[in-house]
Amino acid sequence: MYSYTIPTKAIVTYTEPDWRLQDVLVREPESHELLIKIIATGICHTDIKNVGGIYPRVLGHEGSGRILRRGLDVDPALKEGDPVLLSFAYCRECHMCNTGHPAMCRDQIPWTIRGQDPNFALAEGEGEDERLEDDGSGKKRVVKASYFGHSSFSGIALVKESSVVPVKDLIQNDEELKIFAPLGCGIQTGACAVTNVLKPDPSYDSIAVFGLGGVGLSAVMAAKAVGIKIIIAVDILPSRLSLASEVGATHTINSKTLSPADLTKALRDLPPFSSPTGPEGPTGIVDTTGIPALLQAALASVHRLGRVVQLANQGPGSEVGVGLPEHMSNGTHLTGTIQGDADPKKSVPMLIKWWREGKLPLEKLEKRYPVEDFDRAREEMHGGGVIKPVLIWPE
Amino acid sequence: MYSYTIPTKAIVTYTEPDWRLQDVLVREPESHELLIKIIATGICHTDIKNVGGIYPRVLGHEGSGRILRRGLDVDPALKEGDPVLLSFAYCRECHMCNTGHPAMCRDQIPWTIRGQDPNFALAEGEGEDERLEDDGSGKKRVVKASYFGHSSFSGIALVKESSVVPVKDLIQNDEELKIFAPLGCGIQTGACAVTNVLKPDPSYDSIAVFGLGGVGLSAVMAAKAVGIKIIIAVDILPSRLSLASEVGATHTINSKTLSPADLTKALRDLPPFSSPTGPEGPTGIVDTTGIPALLQAALASVHRLGRVVQLANQGPGSEVGVGLPEHMSNGTHLTGTIQGDADPKKSVPMLIKWWREGKLPLEKLEKRYPVEDFDRAREEMHGGGVIKPVLIWPE
Repeated sequence: MYSYTIPTKAIVTYTEPDWRLQDVLVREPESHELLIKIIATGICHTDIKNVGGIYPRVLGHEGSGRILRRGLDVDPALKEGDPVLLSFAYCRECHMCNTGHPAMCRDQIPWTIRGQDPNFALAEGEGEDERLEDDGSGKKRVVKASYFGHSSFSGIALVKESSVVPVKDLIQNDEELKIFAPLGCGIQTGACAVTNVLKPDPSYDSIAVFGLGGVGLSAVMAAKAVGIKIIIAVDILPSRLSLASEVGATHTINSKTLSPADLTKALRDLPPFSSPTGPEGPTGIVDTTGIPALLQAALASVHRLGRVVQLANQGPGSEVGVGLPEHMSNGTHLTGTIQGDADPKKSVPMLIKWWREGKLPLEKLEKRYPVEDFDRAREEMHGGGVIKPVLIWPE
Repeated sequence: MYSYTIPTKAIVTYTEPDWRLQDVLVREPESHELLIKIIATGICHTDIKNVGGIYPRVLGHEGSGRILRRGLDVDPALKEGDPVLLSFAYCRECHMCNTGHPAMCRDQIPWTIRGQDPNFALAEGEGEDERLEDDGSGKKRVVKASYFGHSSFSGIALVKESSVVPVKDLIQNDEELKIFAPLGCGIQTGACAVTNVLKPDPSYDSIAVFGLGGVGLSAVMAAKAVGIKIIIAVDILPSRLSLASEVGATHTINSKTLSPADLTKALRDLPPFSSPTGPEGPTGIVDTTGIPALLQAALASVHRLGRVVQLANQGPGSEVGVGLPEHMSNGTHLTGTIQGDADPKKSVPMLIKWWREGKLPLEKLEKRYPVEDFDRAREEMHGGGVIKPVLIWPE
């Protein structure tokens, strides 16, 4: 039985649209857990859809803060007051975790989207809800958390040690922690889909990106950062195509009125692909939509031996039909990935270095909101006007 | 208008089952063409199905022989009398051909399965067929050929220069040309699916092979040749599983009575994958069947970040449904390939070297037939008793 003793405020999600900022009590950290004073939290579509489907729950899986308290057995290098970014938790024991691929942990699901440790209890006066668990006193108050190991939609978060990325030697002040808050999921996913999955050769490869949210624009920035010379951005919003050009796209296609076949034609008709003996299409396509018809268009558009990287899906049961004669003849690859197969302890330093070099202009993607404006942040993200809302928690 | 002057015998395919050994006349070679005295020809399922669908036609796309005559502009290093193997033709001008991937030539289809140069005319007395073309004399006698650039089901074949692999420095006698006749397609496809597409790391990777025809058994032999320690062979015929064990498989699964889900369970229950923290399945699966349900089983069985290599398909329109949430979570790859992405000028020397080292015991797969026994060869291949029939042409 936990005792809930540490007061803070957290956003509790009761249904997909029903988020409430409530007074809560956090439990004490146990072995390999830490309490983090949260400074900023990015909102991601994974939160908005509550992928994992557990209610009520504290969500949030991109964040920054400082270590408030350490549980037992935590790495001594992690000290109270140290600045950290939060990414995803993993088991640290399986074959994937032990070979540098923690995003592919064999217990990925329970450590991320299905994490449901009872880390929070509603404070007295916040009422009850029959969907909550008993806090031991007969009251229905306990809220599940541990989303991706942290549930950082909280002023103080109780996090798994594996989700913590120490950045003491990488950042200069708390302002930078606000800028870097979303690095550990959306930005990393798009950037590492390029660096870890496509692994492009700048002297040979070209890249198209389907969908220009935070993930897609991060892929564009990463493609430019590694020196790719042909970067094609595809979306249905002119504002996003324009932003993509600002951060690195060399060509843009507005696919709003295009059929999948038209999109393939538009891609293959671009000047870099129009020579009768030269490349016939981009050698890599990063799809951030998970829409089956767009994945089929990507497979039809990508160069022979090219790779389509699938970063999203449309939910349980969604599938894409891959035409086998064409896939064989063209030698194409359809590659799924989560978190861009990143190890955050390696990707976060790379991303911060890029930012310092001007190669990752995150500020162009971000808009800050005080935490109580979470509903406006979601609406503006949903409307397409804001790419990456960042909630700022009170000091 | 060609003149048909060089007499020989060829197998003319009139319908899928209707093959006839007939007296024919071959035309003279033109620019970048050669006449080859054929010594031996492998029969492949691609011939039996006549993939490409052109009738009547001389098929055959695995062969060995000696250069009989050179057309204009042929590389001076190719001399009359030199021994050669025959593989596939390609344009030699496109991006793929110029970057070491001739199997992925942008004009792959017309240079291989849709090749239809009018290289043969039926000899006088062989009758006519209304489906044949006029030979210029008003008679319907001209037979299309150039299958994969050679159509080696002929005592003398008229071949494209790009399909010729010189082996003068690699072989010791004509007996070896008979052994090596099938190297340029089936054997290369299976072996290079391992070496060029999976590119396994023997200290880390394990491989399963679905389907143990010539291609699948070549994948097994290649996996062993490159040092893979866990090689799982899957087929429905005990004789083939037993042969797979002889040539390198460490585990076998008879999938005759297994559902796709049972096959996945059988694979994942094998001792190498039973540790709670170790690998959960083979890191690579070579599918030689092209059966959608088996490809789905392969995707469900392969390790996280693992690769399923698709070497076959069930004809136009065939497709596999890839479950997007799983493909993303598991970081899996579905990779099509043709000819194992081989450059035959590199793969054939590697395969011959392996054979000399005892790592490619081709003789265990091959059975020789005099060319007039082509029907028996096809039947025994179809019945599963013979893996790779090799037709021996008269001297």
